[in-house]
Amino acid sequence: MSYNLLKGKKGIIFGALNEKSIAWQVAERAYEEGAEFILTNAPVAMRYGEINELAKKCNTEVVAADASSLKDIENLFDVAMAKYGKIDFVLHSIGMSLNVRKGLKYDEVNYDYYHKTLDISAISFHRVLQVAKQKNAINDWGSIIALTYVAAQRTLFRYNDMGDAKAMLESIARSFGYIYGRENNIRVNTISQSPTLTTAGSGVKGIENLLDFTDRMSPLGNATALECADYCVTMFSDLTRKVTMQNLFHDGGFSSMGMSEKAMMMYNKSIEASEQE
Amino acid sequence: MSYNLLKGKKGIIFGALNEKSIAWQVAERAYEEGAEFILTNAPVAMRYGEINELAKKCNTEVVAADASSLKDIENLFDVAMAKYGKIDFVLHSIGMSLNVRKGLKYDEVNYDYYHKTLDISAISFHRVLQVAKQKNAINDWGSIIALTYVAAQRTLFRYNDMGDAKAMLESIARSFGYIYGRENNIRVNTISQSPTLTTAGSGVKGIENLLDFTDRMSPLGNATALECADYCVTMFSDLTRKVTMQNLFHDGGFSSMGMSEKAMMMYNKSIEASEQE
Amino acid sequence: MSYNLLKGKKGIIFGALNEKSIAWQVAERAYEEGAEFILTNAPVAMRYGEINELAKKCNTEVVAADASSLKDIENLFDVAMAKYGKIDFVLHSIGMSLNVRKGLKYDEVNYDYYHKTLDISAISFHRVLQVAKQKNAINDWGSIIALTYVAAQRTLFRYNDMGDAKAMLESIARSFGYIYGRENNIRVNTISQSPTLTTAGSGVKGIENLLDFTDRMSPLGNATALECADYCVTMFSDLTRKVTMQNLFHDGGFSSMGMSEKAMMMYNKSIEASEQE
Amino acid sequence: MSYNLLKGKKGIIFGALNEKSIAWQVAERAYEEGAEFILTNAPVAMRYGEINELAKKCNTEVVAADASSLKDIENLFDVAMAKYGKIDFVLHSIGMSLNVRKGLKYDEVNYDYYHKTLDISAISFHRVLQVAKQKNAINDWGSIIALTYVAAQRTLFRYNDMGDAKAMLESIARSFGYIYGRENNIRVNTISQSPTLTTAGSGVKGIENLLDFTDRMSPLGNATALECADYCVTMFSDLTRKVTMQNLFHDGGFSSMGMSEKAMMMYNKSIEASEQE
Repeated sequence: MSYNLLKGKKGIIFGALNEKSIAWQVAERAYEEGAEFILTNAPVAMRYGEINELAKKCNTEVVAADASSLKDIENLFDVAMAKYGKIDFVLHSIGMSLNVRKGLKYDEVNYDYYHKTLDISAISFHRVLQVAKQKNAINDWGSIIALTYVAAQRTLFRYNDMGDAKAMLESIARSFGYIYGRENNIRVNTISQSPTLTTAGSGVKGIENLLDFTDRMSPLGNATALECADYCVTMFSDLTRKVTMQNLFHDGGFSSMGMSEKAMMMYNKSIEASEQE
Repeated sequence: MSYNLLKGKKGIIFGALNEKSIAWQVAERAYEEGAEFILTNAPVAMRYGEINELAKKCNTEVVAADASSLKDIENLFDVAMAKYGKIDFVLHSIGMSLNVRKGLKYDEVNYDYYHKTLDISAISFHRVLQVAKQKNAINDWGSIIALTYVAAQRTLFRYNDMGDAKAMLESIARSFGYIYGRENNIRVNTISQSPTLTTAGSGVKGIENLLDFTDRMSPLGNATALECADYCVTMFSDLTRKVTMQNLFHDGGFSSMGMSEKAMMMYNKSIEASEQE
Repeated sequence: MSYNLLKGKKGIIFGALNEKSIAWQVAERAYEEGAEFILTNAPVAMRYGEINELAKKCNTEVVAADASSLKDIENLFDVAMAKYGKIDFVLHSIGMSLNVRKGLKYDEVNYDYYHKTLDISAISFHRVLQVAKQKNAINDWGSIIALTYVAAQRTLFRYNDMGDAKAMLESIARSFGYIYGRENNIRVNTISQSPTLTTAGSGVKGIENLLDFTDRMSPLGNATALECADYCVTMFSDLTRKVTMQNLFHDGGFSSMGMSEKAMMMYNKSIEASEQE
Repeated sequence: MSYNLLKGKKGIIFGALNEKSIAWQVAERAYEEGAEFILTNAPVAMRYGEINELAKKCNTEVVAADASSLKDIENLFDVAMAKYGKIDFVLHSIGMSLNVRKGLKYDEVNYDYYHKTLDISAISFHRVLQVAKQKNAINDWGSIIALTYVAAQRTLFRYNDMGDAKAMLESIARSFGYIYGRENNIRVNTISQSPTLTTAGSGVKGIENLLDFTDRMSPLGNATALECADYCVTMFSDLTRKVTMQNLFHDGGFSSMGMSEKAMMMYNKSIEASEQE
């Protein structure tokens, strides 16, 4: 089903790896809604090759870019501008922690890895924005979104230095959103999505049980990647022009819940189980 | 321009008085997007008669209802259900303070008026939700919005007991949003709009200067009633189904600003002016 | 142990019922820290009589006052001023919902009860502030605190209309805090305390299990009534003079947690238990 | 005046440069309240020499430490533990942006400087916490504070990458606060202070006019460094043991203000001045 909400709009979508990826779903939905865009991901992510299928489906191409490399980002925008002239939207869906990967806990982080986490997961967003602005690559009233997670506000065990990276990512959206809004009427927001079983998400130990909890806590249940894509479409459209510098929760209500009946009933079972032991 | 985002959807829109009203603009935009709806306002507001023009434009009717009257709200939903069966969306745009009208300051309020402010501006929203739920009047995945203002989070002098009413309104959206989400997958949100020169807004003394300030503070400037209507359309559409219990700022970035260059430059003038005196 | 933090300070403490009450603990600690104060509670609460023991311990008296009655509040301040001249601090610890008591759910509230909830649990705070200001009853740099709960920000099932009342209470603290600060340098704050097994709290069905959850979620565990009293003492002291219009969480960290290891481990047990069924 | 609130407590205070520094005032007040502590600052900051006067006044010593150097932080804690055994409190008051110093705007940052800003202003706090924990240097129920600024939540023009650094600093307080609370009952909080005319603050262009604005916006006026020191004392004391993972505004109410009468009147002058031009 299409509303042609993004008819004529051009963009860049970071972070599609496979069809579980939110960025993948955004690409499919944006395409259905009439947008054209370039897909991009880190060179290492390209090896898996599935992103090329997505490119085919969306009648476009993939440009590899390491989000840590200013040169790669510059090249990416050069390619996009050669193809489209100015663009209208950007999706940033990038995050990675070497501390998590290497199994280092938050109270025993390696500080080089920590800087790397920030560089890839947060500063990369600033890099995208700064390059876009310096190249004057985005049309007035364009829309830029980065995906984030509630760990920016509330600590989740095992989420490690990614919580700090997400807090910083959201701050960058505000800081740059002020400048980009003032000078080019471009809006910058973050969408804080339910935990999602993407390839990245699946790597987090015990995520299924966390998902069970957040699903029972959220009156509408966890939001899926496809639903997130629908939401992104509205934020890229011309109907949300005055929303900027916001962190928008797309989480079935989780962020506004203290305790739901469903989650409490499940928790109560464990109390009973403990008492029987 | 229309995307048919609300094709086939039915609703109720509270609070259109004249074309400055946000509710008026929402009605026009919802109509363009394919929705059908009933208009409603307080009997006293009907006297001005302009709402009938809107009804004509939108090919619908007006049903008078005092938001303080449970009976009136029940009747309103009965009429809507007789016409449409179940409905899909509701806009609540209602607020009034007798303390403000009578010129009583916040530290000398009349407590009967205070209760009246709450009853009209906040509890009316609960009444709408409770009646809708008891009558099973809203389709699954329906969407309900109430309009609010940043005074719910930050005190503005002269806004008086309306700040408390808006804080409560936003709380009702969360509290009822939990139940309505859990049981019917219906989402409930508030949109926190820039100060707007509606008929109600115009009544606030000194509002032009406040608007000058918020406009300079907001990187995208103040949001207009029409832009707010566009945003409401996305929130009523099927593309935002997992957003619930949220307060969504639609304010050109104001809520995330500490100080902008433009506002500071204007303020600096006043400091210079003071020093010259 | 005493630091004489409140030496020479006079106050009024609302809401002590028995030694489980937070207000009771505040009274004992304030007394130890050198304060003098009047105790007050609703006439109906006086019947239980324990508050007189507290008065004896603290070498003071009890003045009955219905928080819904402007006349009672005025009389209370008259008595306090006759005794002390101006006072320095006030604790508001009052909350009650007839909807909860009568077992009416949040989607079937009685609106008279709802107004009553707001009147007793929130507007009573405005009444105290307005009377105090009109009588010029509080010294410059005085400190006023109301106790609240995280339900003002996040919905907890069964907490019902008390969530809305607490949201409003916190808004009143901001709205009146602005005026009282501007005109008399008096600060107004709310303290958002862990769920506590007071007589009021004990009435909430299933509260033990909720307490188990919040205790495991909070890195420091649930805060006790005595710990809350310690915190109140600092907020009444001269060391916190520039803190105003704030909602201060005193909850062992709960409000900033998304998920703790301890709570997740407990929850996991219930998942295992479910799978065995 | 002293309450002996910190009698017997040992600590480390980062960031005192001269008597305008908040850390300087904290040192003086902590000393008055009975604490013993080591002072520390970057080697380059030591050259000015005034910190030695402070050390003399407080009967202690200065240990130079570059907050970017793990080795320096480790040495610092070794010295402290050799002197005191375990300690009870830490104040982190460190911030610096090379982008600001070099006059690079936020949309033209140098990314090496950006990492440097984060390393000095935010990650240094993690380094302190991680070293302290690994050395088991802090007593149970110890208290750790970092100073921050409202720019973490709301963008201020010219504050540049320091806004992102402060957002991250506050996130670190939550992330590490969870772990340190869970394992050692140690609390970690940030205090968000009014803009203050410290040596660092004075460097910000146009800060006097910003201070004029925030002073008129805040019902209690801007908070001074000395008042901030008083507040820190309460947070280091045993009376605030269950407050953790919080960002505590100490700003005369600024953070909860939308618009004050005083600031609006000043702003109105500038509008009049503009109209006369």
